[in-house]
Amino acid sequence: MKNRKRRRHLHTPGVSPGTITVPSDASAPRIDTMSWGPDTDPATVVRQNVTDIQRLPPLPPGHTLRWVNICGLGDAEVLQAVGKRFNIHPLALEDIANTTQRPKVEAYDSCLFIVARVPTGDGSMPPTRTGSDTGLHAGQLMTEQLSICVGSDFVLTFQEDSEDVFEPVRRRLMSSNSKLHANGADYFAYAIIDAAIDAFFPLLEYYGEALETLEADVISKPALEEITRIHDLKRNLLTARRAVWPQREMLNAILRDETPFIGASTKVYLRDCYDHTVQLIDAIETYREIASGLVDILLSSQSNRMNEIMKVLTIISTIFIPLSFVAGVYGMNFDTTSPWNMPELSWKYGYPVVVGGMISVGIGLLLWFRHRGWLGKRDH
Amino acid sequence: MKNRKRRRHLHTPGVSPGTITVPSDASAPRIDTMSWGPDTDPATVVRQNVTDIQRLPPLPPGHTLRWVNICGLGDAEVLQAVGKRFNIHPLALEDIANTTQRPKVEAYDSCLFIVARVPTGDGSMPPTRTGSDTGLHAGQLMTEQLSICVGSDFVLTFQEDSEDVFEPVRRRLMSSNSKLHANGADYFAYAIIDAAIDAFFPLLEYYGEALETLEADVISKPALEEITRIHDLKRNLLTARRAVWPQREMLNAILRDETPFIGASTKVYLRDCYDHTVQLIDAIETYREIASGLVDILLSSQSNRMNEIMKVLTIISTIFIPLSFVAGVYGMNFDTTSPWNMPELSWKYGYPVVVGGMISVGIGLLLWFRHRGWLGKRDH
Amino acid sequence: MKNRKRRRHLHTPGVSPGTITVPSDASAPRIDTMSWGPDTDPATVVRQNVTDIQRLPPLPPGHTLRWVNICGLGDAEVLQAVGKRFNIHPLALEDIANTTQRPKVEAYDSCLFIVARVPTGDGSMPPTRTGSDTGLHAGQLMTEQLSICVGSDFVLTFQEDSEDVFEPVRRRLMSSNSKLHANGADYFAYAIIDAAIDAFFPLLEYYGEALETLEADVISKPALEEITRIHDLKRNLLTARRAVWPQREMLNAILRDETPFIGASTKVYLRDCYDHTVQLIDAIETYREIASGLVDILLSSQSNRMNEIMKVLTIISTIFIPLSFVAGVYGMNFDTTSPWNMPELSWKYGYPVVVGGMISVGIGLLLWFRHRGWLGKRDH
Amino acid sequence: MKNRKRRRHLHTPGVSPGTITVPSDASAPRIDTMSWGPDTDPATVVRQNVTDIQRLPPLPPGHTLRWVNICGLGDAEVLQAVGKRFNIHPLALEDIANTTQRPKVEAYDSCLFIVARVPTGDGSMPPTRTGSDTGLHAGQLMTEQLSICVGSDFVLTFQEDSEDVFEPVRRRLMSSNSKLHANGADYFAYAIIDAAIDAFFPLLEYYGEALETLEADVISKPALEEITRIHDLKRNLLTARRAVWPQREMLNAILRDETPFIGASTKVYLRDCYDHTVQLIDAIETYREIASGLVDILLSSQSNRMNEIMKVLTIISTIFIPLSFVAGVYGMNFDTTSPWNMPELSWKYGYPVVVGGMISVGIGLLLWFRHRGWLGKRDH
Amino acid sequence: MKNRKRRRHLHTPGVSPGTITVPSDASAPRIDTMSWGPDTDPATVVRQNVTDIQRLPPLPPGHTLRWVNICGLGDAEVLQAVGKRFNIHPLALEDIANTTQRPKVEAYDSCLFIVARVPTGDGSMPPTRTGSDTGLHAGQLMTEQLSICVGSDFVLTFQEDSEDVFEPVRRRLMSSNSKLHANGADYFAYAIIDAAIDAFFPLLEYYGEALETLEADVISKPALEEITRIHDLKRNLLTARRAVWPQREMLNAILRDETPFIGASTKVYLRDCYDHTVQLIDAIETYREIASGLVDILLSSQSNRMNEIMKVLTIISTIFIPLSFVAGVYGMNFDTTSPWNMPELSWKYGYPVVVGGMISVGIGLLLWFRHRGWLGKRDH
Repeated sequence: MKNRKRRRHLHTPGVSPGTITVPSDASAPRIDTMSWGPDTDPATVVRQNVTDIQRLPPLPPGHTLRWVNICGLGDAEVLQAVGKRFNIHPLALEDIANTTQRPKVEAYDSCLFIVARVPTGDGSMPPTRTGSDTGLHAGQLMTEQLSICVGSDFVLTFQEDSEDVFEPVRRRLMSSNSKLHANGADYFAYAIIDAAIDAFFPLLEYYGEALETLEADVISKPALEEITRIHDLKRNLLTARRAVWPQREMLNAILRDETPFIGASTKVYLRDCYDHTVQLIDAIETYREIASGLVDILLSSQSNRMNEIMKVLTIISTIFIPLSFVAGVYGMNFDTTSPWNMPELSWKYGYPVVVGGMISVGIGLLLWFRHRGWLGKRDH
Repeated sequence: MKNRKRRRHLHTPGVSPGTITVPSDASAPRIDTMSWGPDTDPATVVRQNVTDIQRLPPLPPGHTLRWVNICGLGDAEVLQAVGKRFNIHPLALEDIANTTQRPKVEAYDSCLFIVARVPTGDGSMPPTRTGSDTGLHAGQLMTEQLSICVGSDFVLTFQEDSEDVFEPVRRRLMSSNSKLHANGADYFAYAIIDAAIDAFFPLLEYYGEALETLEADVISKPALEEITRIHDLKRNLLTARRAVWPQREMLNAILRDETPFIGASTKVYLRDCYDHTVQLIDAIETYREIASGLVDILLSSQSNRMNEIMKVLTIISTIFIPLSFVAGVYGMNFDTTSPWNMPELSWKYGYPVVVGGMISVGIGLLLWFRHRGWLGKRDH
Repeated sequence: MKNRKRRRHLHTPGVSPGTITVPSDASAPRIDTMSWGPDTDPATVVRQNVTDIQRLPPLPPGHTLRWVNICGLGDAEVLQAVGKRFNIHPLALEDIANTTQRPKVEAYDSCLFIVARVPTGDGSMPPTRTGSDTGLHAGQLMTEQLSICVGSDFVLTFQEDSEDVFEPVRRRLMSSNSKLHANGADYFAYAIIDAAIDAFFPLLEYYGEALETLEADVISKPALEEITRIHDLKRNLLTARRAVWPQREMLNAILRDETPFIGASTKVYLRDCYDHTVQLIDAIETYREIASGLVDILLSSQSNRMNEIMKVLTIISTIFIPLSFVAGVYGMNFDTTSPWNMPELSWKYGYPVVVGGMISVGIGLLLWFRHRGWLGKRDH
Repeated sequence: MKNRKRRRHLHTPGVSPGTITVPSDASAPRIDTMSWGPDTDPATVVRQNVTDIQRLPPLPPGHTLRWVNICGLGDAEVLQAVGKRFNIHPLALEDIANTTQRPKVEAYDSCLFIVARVPTGDGSMPPTRTGSDTGLHAGQLMTEQLSICVGSDFVLTFQEDSEDVFEPVRRRLMSSNSKLHANGADYFAYAIIDAAIDAFFPLLEYYGEALETLEADVISKPALEEITRIHDLKRNLLTARRAVWPQREMLNAILRDETPFIGASTKVYLRDCYDHTVQLIDAIETYREIASGLVDILLSSQSNRMNEIMKVLTIISTIFIPLSFVAGVYGMNFDTTSPWNMPELSWKYGYPVVVGGMISVGIGLLLWFRHRGWLGKRDH
Repeated sequence: MKNRKRRRHLHTPGVSPGTITVPSDASAPRIDTMSWGPDTDPATVVRQNVTDIQRLPPLPPGHTLRWVNICGLGDAEVLQAVGKRFNIHPLALEDIANTTQRPKVEAYDSCLFIVARVPTGDGSMPPTRTGSDTGLHAGQLMTEQLSICVGSDFVLTFQEDSEDVFEPVRRRLMSSNSKLHANGADYFAYAIIDAAIDAFFPLLEYYGEALETLEADVISKPALEEITRIHDLKRNLLTARRAVWPQREMLNAILRDETPFIGASTKVYLRDCYDHTVQLIDAIETYREIASGLVDILLSSQSNRMNEIMKVLTIISTIFIPLSFVAGVYGMNFDTTSPWNMPELSWKYGYPVVVGGMISVGIGLLLWFRHRGWLGKRDH
């Protein structure tokens, strides 16, 4: 996973604007298209693979909208060709190829250019559940760029990799009675953006559960190793936030600005989409706050444990070090023939008295500790 | 309580917009209606249970407003039927069924759609006082979605569960001389929103008291376990904030935007509602800051306690370890026939001199500790 | 003080708007009035106690402004009567009785309704100097609601308790040559708001001094108990901030909005008031930052002290534990008739050599500690 | 320095607005004036001391602008006289006398009233380099109020104390070929504000250097005492921020608002001034962040040092405590006539075997410590 | 590097505006110019060194745009001459010479004045990889001021030092078929700003990698020394942020404001530039958050390690201190002729019984430790 990150450049400085620099390890593009019209029988909506975009046939009669999905950005020439065919601005093409863009929307003359980001993984399963044996190890969340060009009679989508976030959309296209047929390019673009944003929900649900498990673990048996898990979680939340936050701005810009490519009736639906991003951000921020609180609990638990260890050490040492000293004194080899030298040693009851004194001192110290509240288990 | 959380989805991705997905464990809907007019005798305002929304009779003569309360969202068909009967937009219906919405307001042609959140529990008693034996254990606060559709002659309310936050509103409806009769749908919607927002006040009062008790506990006898209680409290405050903050925005949007469903005279009352949310947020934020301060105090108290324990250990060890060493020296078995080997042992006053020396060293060390200020109890 | 807090409700949910709920422990209202005109001889401005607001006589000839001060909110009927007499909106009356409002301003038809908050205490002496024997113990700051209704020819003020923040205003009214006579209700309201805001200045000055003393204490002899004092101070600053911050917004709203009750010439003075709130907030925020910095210093001092204690323990233990071991070895009772068993014991110079060796080891260890820099007093 | 702070009041509550309350310890005012016109020969621009502002002569012929500098605010009557002579609003006079104002700008009919703040000290030398022997001890930064009234043909400046921040401006006035002569009151006011703001630059440069030294010290030999130095620095940065931040707002307000006292051509220069404040704030915020980072490093270094001390203690204790125990066992006085009682003592090689065993245990423990990585110096 | 910083002044206070103060150690200016027109053959675009700006020849026929690059700001007269030749405002000249400006844009009559900042270093290699042997030691990032004056037929650029960030731009100028020829001064200025901003990308990529390495190090073997590396990284991120953040504002101002020097078609490209700055800031903020999280992990790892050390110490001490005490008791020299004095010593099996008892106690303590969970390796 690290290798994958390393090879990716944020941006290559010093090139002429509009230059398409494809990532060196990107997969070869596969292009498939679908087209339909308001009265199209869903059964006739066919998915076609296209090898040469130049030979793309005109729209069949009765069809009013064509969707071209380019999956894999490994060939600059293909991108150029698509750009020429649909009259895409060179800067938009550059942004499509450079897959580290923040989500944004830009209005060009020929189309509305939208960049979104989707979490990578195999669709419904959250990509972070990699170490599913442990149940909780969070893999590193990554996001993939999804570029959308919304024209008057076409929608182009560009994906980095082969995972297909569009499957539900396709199924709806194939089914009869879908609003997708009756509405235009803007509504279809909405359906795609909606699918992209909704892909974050199972992820956050998963993070929410992971956080609850973490919370229970941290409170029941706090281990400092959890801090790494919390860090992983926070990092993934940061990644999700980085992807979702600008999507909110992007949707806000679409809703606010007048553009010929988005109709008023579709804006109602995009507002719903916008609400979803707000909900996502809300969840992310809450999870981040809870995670930070867990770090506090962890650290204080450690401090608690340290206190307990110190207490045991201190109690044992404080009782036995003075007693050992006394024993040491009576182990000295002074010449007891002098009456001044340790006469206790010769007393008949010397030993019981000394041992009794030791026991008294020990018990006295224990009582003192109890008085200071050091003997209770974990309580104050 | 955990089970309950787990089963709930934030959002199901990939479905067509307007699809109603009811939570699998939601209770079956119970529908009851009330209707009245400006001159209605309160005694005749009757609460009716309705089983089939389609057979809802027209408004009785003289009645101008009908309130339909749907409690339980477990049946998508019932929601569909209500939606059809009152001409509710599909997106609004979807939001009603998906009970994880943030509070918001949306203007549709046929009605104003409002989402609010109420704390769950049995009304006046704060739901967090579950472990009332301990007096302070804060249960996990949860909130429930309350959806409101305000039309020209109807108000629909949708609740998740059976707890009824509307009881006071109903009592006012039944009593004579209520402004509820004389005013229209907007004023009635205000009464409902007001009831929803006011349900947070006893909760915050309870949290305020819990915080004061916590504060007293933390200062008088700091125990690290309190950090879990503080964490619980902070988490509940976070939940409350998440519910209340967007309600402020929602009310602000109602106040700011022109809509045919809300009259100017009602806006005065909604402004009052808005003030209540500001007051709630203010209290929440203050409590959060105080709670954070308590964590600091706790940690520093722990550090203080650790210091004290270390001091005792150090004092005892520092005094007795050197003395034990001296005793050990005179316990060595050197052949005292050599005049160089421990002649002290044979001196007449050897023992008193050594013991006296030991006592002097001990007292000297104690004085040194006092000089360094280690002997005072807890002071600097 | 706790009892007092407990009884106070933030808000009673579920009541009809405009219902006046007086706090159960509020004192009975005392009403006194003053009236004057631009040409009134100050000596004739008389303060009158009124028992029944209904029997309030009309303004004397030549008098153009009446000030009615209601002190104590314990009687809902009196409030109702005042409301009826001066045509106050029911929502305003509800806010007057419910004394937990945030400062705000609301324009009604008959008057401008302003809520301010004043610190409670006996006027010039800051209320927090309760434990004046210790000189620094900060009592808990509390604030009291002050409601003001500014009409065209009257100003009503409502106070919770008997402490009178208006004494300076009254003195100015009684003195000749005061601008208060020549100007209208808006200028008089300004004078009252100004007095309310200025009541925070001595408080903050006191906090500033307390902070300086704390700072000096923390740096000269850091004691962890100070953290409680810092916490008290921060809490009071939080309370002050909660009262002052919305007063800034309130003044801003008065300055910004057009209202018939506030003239342009008075706005110049209110802008001055606004500057005072900004200055207060500035001081509060600065004090809060400094207080947070002190917590850092305290904690690091504790860590320093702990280090020092550990150093002493480690030095003593590290020197004497090995030496004691050596003494212990020569205290073993091996049969020295075998030439292999401790022949040192029988050597003529065994004892001096061993003791010399011990002294060398002890000095060697001390030198090593010095090399590591552990022997310096408190320096690194 | 503390005394000086104590005596200063933020504001005296309860006085009539426009009342001039001079600080009780303020120095007596000294007034000096200069006047000039566009064609004035710089050599004839004379600085005059004025004792009675009433006897101020009219402007000499050809002179178009007069600058009156009042230094020392100890006499309310002088301020009153100046106010009357130049028609200054009473609220402005009150603000001039009350020297704790935040920087601000206020438009009155007769003049533009500007409040700025300058760091106190002897000009180019930063006032904080008081303890220059240590080279780094930061004295407490204080700021002084500088009030400016910009009229059509006069500029008044009011300073608290005798230090003169205007010396460079005066030198430029005296030199020929200065833009100050050709331009009006607004440009002159700009020159003064510019001088006031620029006085912060050497200060911040000094703080930047102090921070670098601190950083080097903290990294090379971290001592917790540095935290007090960091605190001093942070506090001074806070003071500087408190003075500079509102100066930015103040300049922004001048640039944004239309006022007859500031011409468009001067605004270009004030925009430059504005940029300087932004640059200052930028530096202050950066220094604050770096200082906070240093605290982290310090605390972690302390923790590191503590770990090292603990390691030494643990290694020594863990090796010698068990060995001492063994020695102690063989120092017991059991009657060796019984064959069960310590037969080792009588063995011929008992002593070498026991000592050999002890050495083995010691070496074994050392190896175990090395395995755990405790023996490396400071590395993990 | 420190010397270099010390000598640089943020600003010299007290000088007349428009005074050019060159840094005393700045290198002598080298001026080179290029000019071209829309139809210029790239091969004829020649780079010319100019020694006297006054003798700059007029534009060759067909050429419409001249680029003058001044590298090195060590000669005030040269700057003056350039200013006079191209009619640059004195304030702009002052800002050019004073190389600590924040990025900004200012509109003057004769040109648009832009200040940008570029990281110093040798182009593509990030300047922080100085200690490339360690691979990770981050040198201190510094930025250099780049001033740009965009006129109608000229673009002036001013650099502090000899490193040339413009090389890619020059190469594009020299190549045929570049948009640089066909477009005007605004597009050329865009190309330069773009190059300046893009110079941060490899730097951030490098920081991202450094952070990943740091993260791996901190998690696998946490060493407190890493905190210095994290601090270095954070400091450099702070420097980068300080340079990039105002560049975003600057670009925003260019995009927002109407100015004759920037055409609408170029704004599309500048918007792209703006997106790059947003992307940079996004990366910087994310890296800063991750770095802060690493500090938490480091500190908690240290705490963990300390706990482990304490555990070992406590286990050893707690087991052997009581046992040593017992051995000490039986080492006392009481006169065993009294039957009360230590009869155990004379028992036949005294020694085995005592040693057995010691072993039992030791094992018992070990079991108790295991029960408390202290014996596991690193787990809770």
